[in-house]
Amino acid sequence: MAKRKVYLAKKSLEEAKAIWNNFLSTIEPKKETIPVKESLNRITASPVQASRSAPNFNASAMDGIAVSSEDTAGATEREPITLKGNQFKYVNTGNLIPEGYNAVIKIEDINQLDSGIKIFKSVSPWHNVRTIGESVMKGDQILTSNQKLKAYHIGALLEAGVFEVEVYAKPVLTVISTGDEIVSPESSPEPGQYVDFNSTMVKEMAEEAGGEINFYGVVSDEEKALKAAINQATQSSDLVITIAGSSAGSKDFTASIVEEKGEIFVHGVEIQPGKPLLLGAIENVPFIGLPGFPLSCLHAFENFGTMAVKALQKDSADADNYIQAKVKRKLASKPGRVEYVRVNLSFEKSQTGQEDFPIAVPRRRGSAVMKSQAQADGILEIPADREGLAVDELAEVKLLYPESCLKDNLVLAGSNDPLLDYLQELLITSAQKIKLRLQSRGSQAGIHALIRGEADLTTAHLLDPETGEYNLSYLDQIAEEPLELLTLAWRDQGLYLSPDSQLCLKNINDLKNKDITFINRQQGAGTRILFDYQLNQSNIKPAEIKGYDREEYTHAAVAQAVAVGSADTALGIRAVAKAFGLNFIPLFSERFELIYPTRLAEDYRIKKIKEIIKSNRFQEYLTEQTGYDLKDTGQIRNAGPSRRR
Amino acid sequence: MAKRKVYLAKKSLEEAKAIWNNFLSTIEPKKETIPVKESLNRITASPVQASRSAPNFNASAMDGIAVSSEDTAGATEREPITLKGNQFKYVNTGNLIPEGYNAVIKIEDINQLDSGIKIFKSVSPWHNVRTIGESVMKGDQILTSNQKLKAYHIGALLEAGVFEVEVYAKPVLTVISTGDEIVSPESSPEPGQYVDFNSTMVKEMAEEAGGEINFYGVVSDEEKALKAAINQATQSSDLVITIAGSSAGSKDFTASIVEEKGEIFVHGVEIQPGKPLLLGAIENVPFIGLPGFPLSCLHAFENFGTMAVKALQKDSADADNYIQAKVKRKLASKPGRVEYVRVNLSFEKSQTGQEDFPIAVPRRRGSAVMKSQAQADGILEIPADREGLAVDELAEVKLLYPESCLKDNLVLAGSNDPLLDYLQELLITSAQKIKLRLQSRGSQAGIHALIRGEADLTTAHLLDPETGEYNLSYLDQIAEEPLELLTLAWRDQGLYLSPDSQLCLKNINDLKNKDITFINRQQGAGTRILFDYQLNQSNIKPAEIKGYDREEYTHAAVAQAVAVGSADTALGIRAVAKAFGLNFIPLFSERFELIYPTRLAEDYRIKKIKEIIKSNRFQEYLTEQTGYDLKDTGQIRNAGPSRRR
Repeated sequence: MAKRKVYLAKKSLEEAKAIWNNFLSTIEPKKETIPVKESLNRITASPVQASRSAPNFNASAMDGIAVSSEDTAGATEREPITLKGNQFKYVNTGNLIPEGYNAVIKIEDINQLDSGIKIFKSVSPWHNVRTIGESVMKGDQILTSNQKLKAYHIGALLEAGVFEVEVYAKPVLTVISTGDEIVSPESSPEPGQYVDFNSTMVKEMAEEAGGEINFYGVVSDEEKALKAAINQATQSSDLVITIAGSSAGSKDFTASIVEEKGEIFVHGVEIQPGKPLLLGAIENVPFIGLPGFPLSCLHAFENFGTMAVKALQKDSADADNYIQAKVKRKLASKPGRVEYVRVNLSFEKSQTGQEDFPIAVPRRRGSAVMKSQAQADGILEIPADREGLAVDELAEVKLLYPESCLKDNLVLAGSNDPLLDYLQELLITSAQKIKLRLQSRGSQAGIHALIRGEADLTTAHLLDPETGEYNLSYLDQIAEEPLELLTLAWRDQGLYLSPDSQLCLKNINDLKNKDITFINRQQGAGTRILFDYQLNQSNIKPAEIKGYDREEYTHAAVAQAVAVGSADTALGIRAVAKAFGLNFIPLFSERFELIYPTRLAEDYRIKKIKEIIKSNRFQEYLTEQTGYDLKDTGQIRNAGPSRRR
Repeated sequence: MAKRKVYLAKKSLEEAKAIWNNFLSTIEPKKETIPVKESLNRITASPVQASRSAPNFNASAMDGIAVSSEDTAGATEREPITLKGNQFKYVNTGNLIPEGYNAVIKIEDINQLDSGIKIFKSVSPWHNVRTIGESVMKGDQILTSNQKLKAYHIGALLEAGVFEVEVYAKPVLTVISTGDEIVSPESSPEPGQYVDFNSTMVKEMAEEAGGEINFYGVVSDEEKALKAAINQATQSSDLVITIAGSSAGSKDFTASIVEEKGEIFVHGVEIQPGKPLLLGAIENVPFIGLPGFPLSCLHAFENFGTMAVKALQKDSADADNYIQAKVKRKLASKPGRVEYVRVNLSFEKSQTGQEDFPIAVPRRRGSAVMKSQAQADGILEIPADREGLAVDELAEVKLLYPESCLKDNLVLAGSNDPLLDYLQELLITSAQKIKLRLQSRGSQAGIHALIRGEADLTTAHLLDPETGEYNLSYLDQIAEEPLELLTLAWRDQGLYLSPDSQLCLKNINDLKNKDITFINRQQGAGTRILFDYQLNQSNIKPAEIKGYDREEYTHAAVAQAVAVGSADTALGIRAVAKAFGLNFIPLFSERFELIYPTRLAEDYRIKKIKEIIKSNRFQEYLTEQTGYDLKDTGQIRNAGPSRRR
């Protein structure tokens, strides 16, 4: 058994940043001279002086007539002067002021007669004249060092006759993903294997920050191979990055390699995701060991990789865009470390007229939940000095989009169904560009998120075993304000079967066969409630179903179990069967409703949703998908405290 | 004489934006399918579903041991359980959970004995296990249409087995600069000619906004040639842009060409710079006629070009970064139009402890002052419904840099000298990265900017003709608080002569020669005050100097007059002579001082300046430049109301 290492003392985020920044500032970046026309977003490495003046002549600033100021003396509205012969010359904007003239009168201010030009006021010398060097004067210092070049800087340099500029060279990066279990994204990973997308993600971030990529990809995590790769990278790069293997596992060689060949500054930083991070240097080349979980990798790079790529060309970090938002449920965190929580943002409450903060609705936490990251609006930061956040507490949220793009957001936390994906697509591509943010939480949790003011909307298929009715009775019991229920569709629940299966299942009674292995959903899941209700209706006891006690937490998990043959069948929705290539035997139909506060019934976004639900396009889509019954689609029902029994 | 056209009715900025946006939203952008790895910052044109689940097996979330949850039941700190044989299996983070195990205990939480593994608490099923599909589930909709792809989206897609993505095609632009007077930047413009840098500037901005350039460059402004170019561009581009010729001059054909072949939506927008702008369409291809003055071109493109490039691929505009700042002098503007004023920003006043706003210090206004733009920190916007701004009024400033990069700014408005450029360079490359923002205003205007709290610093060489002393007496009279004067150097003023000149000038008396043509600076200029003082000292009457009455407003203008031979000589500073390749005959030495409020004497930025002034590096530089006398360099003098006579 390999010997296990332990972490070095962890550092706070601030401390680690200070140490890293201090080290980076000791490195003098390389310089290079490049054409000005290719210098956008590069950083000047020396001051720049104008090689010529612009304009290099006195020029008309207007379309009009060039005059000699003296000839205009005394002209007024009441006593205009008429200029004749050589007393004026037509000029267009930008024209050279001809010899003998020193001012321009605008075309709009003159009166053209056959005998000459009538003018109505006098002008002082150089009026409406761009004098030599107005834009830039030869010899002027236009830019200092450390200036990031924007389009208008490039314009200014070209005007001033500067065609080459000395800039800091783009730092060259090597990005090494390590791990024997790592395969290329294009391959099909076996159980136990992972595709390497981290190195691509880091490459894209590094290039956006202004770096240049030498190599990115996978290197085996044999100690020798890794050592050779790091060695080569150190010779040919300005920044070396490894991904995974920076932690304390038996195959985590990174720390010992860096220690042997260079110096470790920081091993472990108090951020989550992102903690198992290593900062060091080999032969004065900065080295970052990023964690292997993709969101740890992302946050670690954002904090330390971007800083390095920018510092290595003397660029300043871009300002992140933060807003303050409220949370509507308790968020736990470990004191002493910064926790990053992916959130969706709902601005609805601030549109009611009251001055209020946007609501941050947390998505799934974890270091490797890419869909959660892909669909987030921002990253909420729980500060290191806090032990989580209480209900209604404020926190800083780093926006992933400009705030203006999020104002129309609707956050829906509830039961999931592919029809919501289609609704989402129709909303974002509508003229109003409404972002429907979906969080899959199940019916019950979704309803509670709606009621505590966290989500704007929820979806549910919550069967009342007493009445056989959906949603209404539960909502009546707990709602604090009137709610509207909009039926999206009745949808099929049914049995999953492998396409190779020889079983012939027709109804729930067929599950009593002892040769059939079932796999169940966890207690409290809408599908489990439905299953238990149906068993009860059919007078079947749980004990009669082989595998009733084996619980999984998602539709996908039971579908996967059926797909790989570890169970024969399971109850679930049709869409997941389709995704996993399973056969589907519809057994039951359940009401799937969208639920929101009645006060929002006339909100333009809800009205848009109602319009879509009733549209031919949406209904035809549902019909095509099969598994939906549209008999009540668009029907509105009401629930609320006034109906409470 | 060509017939002059007039503008169509001008539109407000808001109105023009609404019209333009409405038109753009009717255009359905082209789509294309591209590799995910090349999709950074592109916009999805259709929703994207996961092709595989990740992970597609149950995986350990920790380094530790895989166990069966049942075997851990009852373990506590007091009554640990020892797992033996097959009851545990070592796993690293990410490993497949072996068949028969369903939870993981962290390596840190176990005790490795010879006889087995001691554990101190029980774990529930799936504890520390990443279940199938945790990151993304096969069939899940990961992204909708209209999603801008970031690095983590690319990561999520690769993980989900998605390698190609349908995106909106980059809009293809043609950018045509028009004008017979326009030459390439690499050529040497004759008087009356301008170099074309606008098209490069627009190209860079368009590419940054996500566009692709088909052609950019100059086309002659013959009506026929321009018509042919526009015609060809319309066939091959998604957006056609002309630069210059959109106004109402005799050679401004753009409007009539667009009118003939398509439609004009807007001609003239109430913004300054930027007004003479044309928005239209030819055969449904959007057309923008940008004004020819570079800063008009810049603002017009920022408002309407960027909008078009983004709308044509369904991208949302990025949020601009605004802050509120105070002005310390009256700023005039024409009501009814938005005026853009380039400003430097000083945060000094908000660092005194009082809660206060940053100060916006306006730079030179005008539509074609590139150096002013290149050295601005932000663009102050005077709203259309205001007739300028009063002293101490607040306005919105669009930041050109992140606010954090501007906090150390020092704004110096005063008399200019190349030694300030060097000081500026040493400050920005120092560890503190202090931005010294220079505004050339002359001694007197600079002192007033300092006193009304606009500038942080000023420089002056203001001779008191009564005493022959510099700066002190003037400051004593008008200062409202104690001021410190730091002598930078004594510098030479002298006569400019063309290198071809046969004249032999030794002193000011030589100017009395009637064969010599002088050119003078305007009244109030420090150099003019010095000249008048010296004439007086030498008992020379102005009438004795040929050309005394011919005034120019800058050092450069008199240098240029001497360079082209329209005057024989002028008085000025050595640096400008050098820039214009003139000979220089030193006549006088004047004290050049840096002035700031005494309360800032201990500010870290001022201390840094003092340190630099005294450094060998700075003093050696001045010695090399020649023309500076360092006898009093670094000397500190005091002025202020208490010394007022």
